[in-house]
Amino acid sequence: MKLYTYFRSSAAYRVRIALNLKGLQPEMIPIHLLKDGGMQLQPAYRAINPEGLVPALEDAGQMLTQSLAIIEYLDETCPQPALLPADALGRARVRALSLSIACDIHPLNNLRILRYLSGEFQVTEEQKNAWYRHWCEVGLGALEAQLARSEATGRFCHGDTPGMADCCLVPQVFNAQRFNVDLSALPTILRINQACLELPAFEAAHPSKQADAE
Amino acid sequence: MKLYTYFRSSAAYRVRIALNLKGLQPEMIPIHLLKDGGMQLQPAYRAINPEGLVPALEDAGQMLTQSLAIIEYLDETCPQPALLPADALGRARVRALSLSIACDIHPLNNLRILRYLSGEFQVTEEQKNAWYRHWCEVGLGALEAQLARSEATGRFCHGDTPGMADCCLVPQVFNAQRFNVDLSALPTILRINQACLELPAFEAAHPSKQADAE
Repeated sequence: MKLYTYFRSSAAYRVRIALNLKGLQPEMIPIHLLKDGGMQLQPAYRAINPEGLVPALEDAGQMLTQSLAIIEYLDETCPQPALLPADALGRARVRALSLSIACDIHPLNNLRILRYLSGEFQVTEEQKNAWYRHWCEVGLGALEAQLARSEATGRFCHGDTPGMADCCLVPQVFNAQRFNVDLSALPTILRINQACLELPAFEAAHPSKQADAE
Repeated sequence: MKLYTYFRSSAAYRVRIALNLKGLQPEMIPIHLLKDGGMQLQPAYRAINPEGLVPALEDAGQMLTQSLAIIEYLDETCPQPALLPADALGRARVRALSLSIACDIHPLNNLRILRYLSGEFQVTEEQKNAWYRHWCEVGLGALEAQLARSEATGRFCHGDTPGMADCCLVPQVFNAQRFNVDLSALPTILRINQACLELPAFEAAHPSKQADAE
């Protein structure tokens, strides 16, 4: 098993957490997203993942892409500990929480988007940061409302064991903090984030702990 | 079962296709995304879905959000015909194809994003359309490469029966065509889109066939 990763990629960070929770230790292959205009856009990596995005996971002779598809695959092929609950409604809830981060927050604040805003629209650094914070605040605010109002929320996003939604939450909070997003109105998110960070699986997946960290 | 929908919402369109493929006919509740600054942002709908996005599906007394989570739920609770393959690698592939649309194309071209670009960055209509086409072209180009190179691609995105990835593909192609994106370099996508449109489940889900169509 090989994981194509970048220490600061939010999507790769999600998969690293899931792998650690499963006790899996793939070979880590760093793909530098900034060097030479982005190694992920070079033909060598495009042959691995035509999307030119990290992460990608090689397993069973196949190349898997998209962080949530990879985490679901890990959960199906290596069921313990489970990252999704057993009941259909609970699974739908964990997937929805995960997707609200993976679809409605993270893609808007990705490196390639910020580059487009600076390059094509010539927005200022301040405008770019305001854009970043806006989508973080809108998305995390909605997530806070969903977590706070549900009895299914426990020590973690769903119950008292960490799962797929937590694998998404922690990297998103890390990103938000990097961009100085004000998180003080998000007590449930901060509480769950803290509970996660106390676990070795989350700690070892942190960007600063990766071999390619700068 | 109730579906909160908007005729032209790409994410609602995905779920309508899945419901039709399953032969399910929920009550349709239109949420007008433009009227009064957007009905999805009003308190009445926020109480249903704090994210302020469509679709949402009410079933078993629960409110489900996020189109892909809803489709997976439908597939688990109403297994025939299956929208995901039985094997873990196949499921990972279908999820990755779906997520490449739901995470890497659609969120960038959503109504609220285009509004932000016009309102905050004061981009011109031409710049906004160029942004739209850019992310469509990048995303659909990568999807074409993934579909074209895989033996798992059949009459549909995965094999010869329609599934979750096709539920995502058709609304995205519809959107791209609305914005005059050049699709001529995407023969596999166009072929699969055509095969889907020949099926009644896809036809009945089309924006122009909805009760709230304008």
